[in-house]
Amino acid sequence: MVSDLDKVFNRQISAQKKSAIREVLKLTQRPEIISFAGGLPSPESFPVEHLRKIVCEIFDSEDASLALQYGTTEGDQRLRELLVERYRKQGLDIGTGNLIITTASQQALDLLPKIFIDPGDKIICGLPSYLGGISAFGFYGAQMEGVKLDKYGMRSDLLEDKLKKMKAFGEKPKFIYTIPDFQNPAGITMPESRRQEIIDIAHKHDVLIVEDSPYRELRFEGSAQKMIYAMDNTGHVISLGTFSKILAPGFRIGWVIAHEKIIDKLVTAKQTADLCTSPFVQKIAARYLETGIFDNHLEKIKNLYREKRDIMLTALKEYMPDGVSWTEPDGGLFLFLTLPDYMDAGELFMQAIEEKVAFVLGSVFHCDGSGRNTMRLNFSFASKDMNVEGIKRLANAIRKNIK
Amino acid sequence: MVSDLDKVFNRQISAQKKSAIREVLKLTQRPEIISFAGGLPSPESFPVEHLRKIVCEIFDSEDASLALQYGTTEGDQRLRELLVERYRKQGLDIGTGNLIITTASQQALDLLPKIFIDPGDKIICGLPSYLGGISAFGFYGAQMEGVKLDKYGMRSDLLEDKLKKMKAFGEKPKFIYTIPDFQNPAGITMPESRRQEIIDIAHKHDVLIVEDSPYRELRFEGSAQKMIYAMDNTGHVISLGTFSKILAPGFRIGWVIAHEKIIDKLVTAKQTADLCTSPFVQKIAARYLETGIFDNHLEKIKNLYREKRDIMLTALKEYMPDGVSWTEPDGGLFLFLTLPDYMDAGELFMQAIEEKVAFVLGSVFHCDGSGRNTMRLNFSFASKDMNVEGIKRLANAIRKNIK
Repeated sequence: MVSDLDKVFNRQISAQKKSAIREVLKLTQRPEIISFAGGLPSPESFPVEHLRKIVCEIFDSEDASLALQYGTTEGDQRLRELLVERYRKQGLDIGTGNLIITTASQQALDLLPKIFIDPGDKIICGLPSYLGGISAFGFYGAQMEGVKLDKYGMRSDLLEDKLKKMKAFGEKPKFIYTIPDFQNPAGITMPESRRQEIIDIAHKHDVLIVEDSPYRELRFEGSAQKMIYAMDNTGHVISLGTFSKILAPGFRIGWVIAHEKIIDKLVTAKQTADLCTSPFVQKIAARYLETGIFDNHLEKIKNLYREKRDIMLTALKEYMPDGVSWTEPDGGLFLFLTLPDYMDAGELFMQAIEEKVAFVLGSVFHCDGSGRNTMRLNFSFASKDMNVEGIKRLANAIRKNIK
Repeated sequence: MVSDLDKVFNRQISAQKKSAIREVLKLTQRPEIISFAGGLPSPESFPVEHLRKIVCEIFDSEDASLALQYGTTEGDQRLRELLVERYRKQGLDIGTGNLIITTASQQALDLLPKIFIDPGDKIICGLPSYLGGISAFGFYGAQMEGVKLDKYGMRSDLLEDKLKKMKAFGEKPKFIYTIPDFQNPAGITMPESRRQEIIDIAHKHDVLIVEDSPYRELRFEGSAQKMIYAMDNTGHVISLGTFSKILAPGFRIGWVIAHEKIIDKLVTAKQTADLCTSPFVQKIAARYLETGIFDNHLEKIKNLYREKRDIMLTALKEYMPDGVSWTEPDGGLFLFLTLPDYMDAGELFMQAIEEKVAFVLGSVFHCDGSGRNTMRLNFSFASKDMNVEGIKRLANAIRKNIK
């Protein structure tokens, strides 16, 4: 070994703590623990039989050798066409030149700072925001500036204040990072009125918006709010999508929709990152969209998750002591729980593990370290019975700390 | 659109030219062109029937829901065990803690600078070296220092000179980047004696070696030279492998073998890059290794490529004018051709396209811009007949420039 390996690593990696989620997940993966910590889709939601059939068809067709060969960096042409078609129905004014396939959304969250961030550049994000986004941006030396959410998502008044203050210092963020639908971790959806306010502010301050929307198609109730991209359609918005929550995360397929100039830079960045996303899994996804099974299957997943959410909400009402509140999401995988002010979710965590239940600390989603009395709960992965039993256990742990 | 998008992009992406290979490939993909430009395995080399069977078995087993779910960042445990077992037989003193699965080798080449390079840091590479490596390193601001090859690979005398000169300036490279087996693009293999010299120099100067070895298992003749990792076994070496050339590039599976401390940092870096490589394709690869089909199939690929190489070498001897020379690789996918000094492969390129044959300019593989009278020829992808016809056409184009 070289004499001092620690000095060979660069500044960015040396500054990284081991990922909070990764370390916590290890603890929560003990078999006796009911874990609300992960963000995993339910295995019941995977269309195994349909996929088996589709893969056999691919192997029996001339697509087989294309599926096993290198593909283009932009992604499978047919898959891109199908996705563009879907989005055009949602009012997005785009063509295939506006869409690149990525190795799931996480790669999109890595490629964005790779083309936009010089160390010290700023990004605005919600308080709270998806940890995987914050971490990816941080790896490139981005400084996160948090803006609080209310029940309609990122507060536009605080966003405008923040941008004005930055402007006074001659600063401008590289983009505003938002998760408008069933926000991870907060479970909140931005109504169109708030989306419009954010767009107006972005236009006024000449700033890009990143719309990260992995859960958009998982709406259980209420009506869909237009995509920020569709409401803007002027190239101010970069939208991220993924098959991870609506088909299978094991395929690692996501995409970015943006102005062609941005897609072009993303292609250049992706080429050195992994050359191309697996053409094999892209061909599977394309056929899955083509067959029309997809929309039927989506209904099945939504019914399943609606039921799981309802069961968790009922259990929360029944078992949680006074002073504890939570969001009631219209879709997605998560709800967000707020403890009384005087409680610390970090201190509670080990007590919860003793009760054999796990969650993720809300504070890890807050770039300013706030949110210490909050936690994220996933309702999609555990069985219905475990969702009830887990909430009982969590309520027990919390009750012991009520003053 | 924001008012001046070009100013929003960061320094690194703004400095990128469109990838030379990507732009050239577009030209070479016209149907009438015989292209020696790509680095594609032959579609005949894909074990379609075996893979079909394996995928059906996965869908019919309890592995199905694991294959479709998120996986660990380190990679599929079984696949890692199988790879470690194979490498232990080659003399590598490693356990699963020394191996991480990556989204093909290209991701490994992106994660290495992601943990080692601060802008301005230096890396030593061969003249020539794999363009995808040089580009990935450059994206993180690495400065490449080239060392010429002779017929045994990177010249150890020049390497030592380079390190001494750097030391005199208080500098040390982050690592020495080598491709010891059937080098891309040169088609040269480093004998063990040269490997030992490189190791001794690396020890003396306290520098890491990166051993990028995508073609190692594709040896058509001569005897295997020990891996640099196995000859060292002290943690000075980081080895990169991939299934892209021996199973299917469409799966996007590679791996890195290194000291546990390095693997640990790579895991952290990969987590924000794409969370995990597709567990679905990893399970396919693991079963493929387990069945024992792999080694038989490897023989088949090697026989196919040996024949294609021989046919190209024979055609070169028959058709090339005096003054043109080429390497005669013992394996891999490429050979390297040197034109008379007074010729420029860049000027020849469009004449070759007129003759309906394409190659990659050797200069793109030279970090110092040298090699203008060289080119890389791929012999694995085109059919045997096309290998002959393409060399005839290329010889015609060259002959017109002979003085």
